[in-house]
Amino acid sequence: MDYSKLNGLIPAVIQDADSGEVLMVGFMNSEAWDITRRTGYVTFYSRTRNTLWTKGETSGNKLEVVDILVDCDDDTVLVKVKRLGDGNVCHTGQRTCFFRALNEHKGHKQ
Amino acid sequence: MDYSKLNGLIPAVIQDADSGEVLMVGFMNSEAWDITRRTGYVTFYSRTRNTLWTKGETSGNKLEVVDILVDCDDDTVLVKVKRLGDGNVCHTGQRTCFFRALNEHKGHKQ
Repeated sequence: MDYSKLNGLIPAVIQDADSGEVLMVGFMNSEAWDITRRTGYVTFYSRTRNTLWTKGETSGNKLEVVDILVDCDDDTVLVKVKRLGDGNVCHTGQRTCFFRALNEHKGHKQ
Repeated sequence: MDYSKLNGLIPAVIQDADSGEVLMVGFMNSEAWDITRRTGYVTFYSRTRNTLWTKGETSGNKLEVVDILVDCDDDTVLVKVKRLGDGNVCHTGQRTCFFRALNEHKGHKQ
């Protein structure tokens, strides 16, 4: 993978393997990428906390890797997953982090 | 949108509005984001060329915005699109930039 374009990170798009819903986008460094492939559970690098985190390690809502696709220039991955636990991926308790359409978004600074 | 985490950029995941396929990931700065919303065609900021580019402006394979979703912390967008032109999104001529499964990827440095 090419980590050079983003200071050692690659974006990882997480998609529900069954429904096709895009659930979230996180970032991986090479260690997070290795752990994800080795364990079969999605692990990110947190840019704000400067630490590795396995999604769902606290909540139990882990993301089990079903399939991984690599993009044409090796700088982004698409991880198809099965949602474990209660299946709510977002920290807000929503099913996906993409739960707001742009036109429901007027109250925020855009 | 919060551009602070990525030096003025946000990742934009492009998904086929009909099939649910994830087609590519690009980056937008605030100008690309404004142009995308104003024109209805996906426009990115190229990190390698340091310039705005409307996807398909040369090939004719523009991406028409159908729906836009914003993630929970305002730093990523999901753009659902209709593929115009011949519908091949990737510069390699493939339908999507995510055309390689990880296990077909052994020849590359990972």
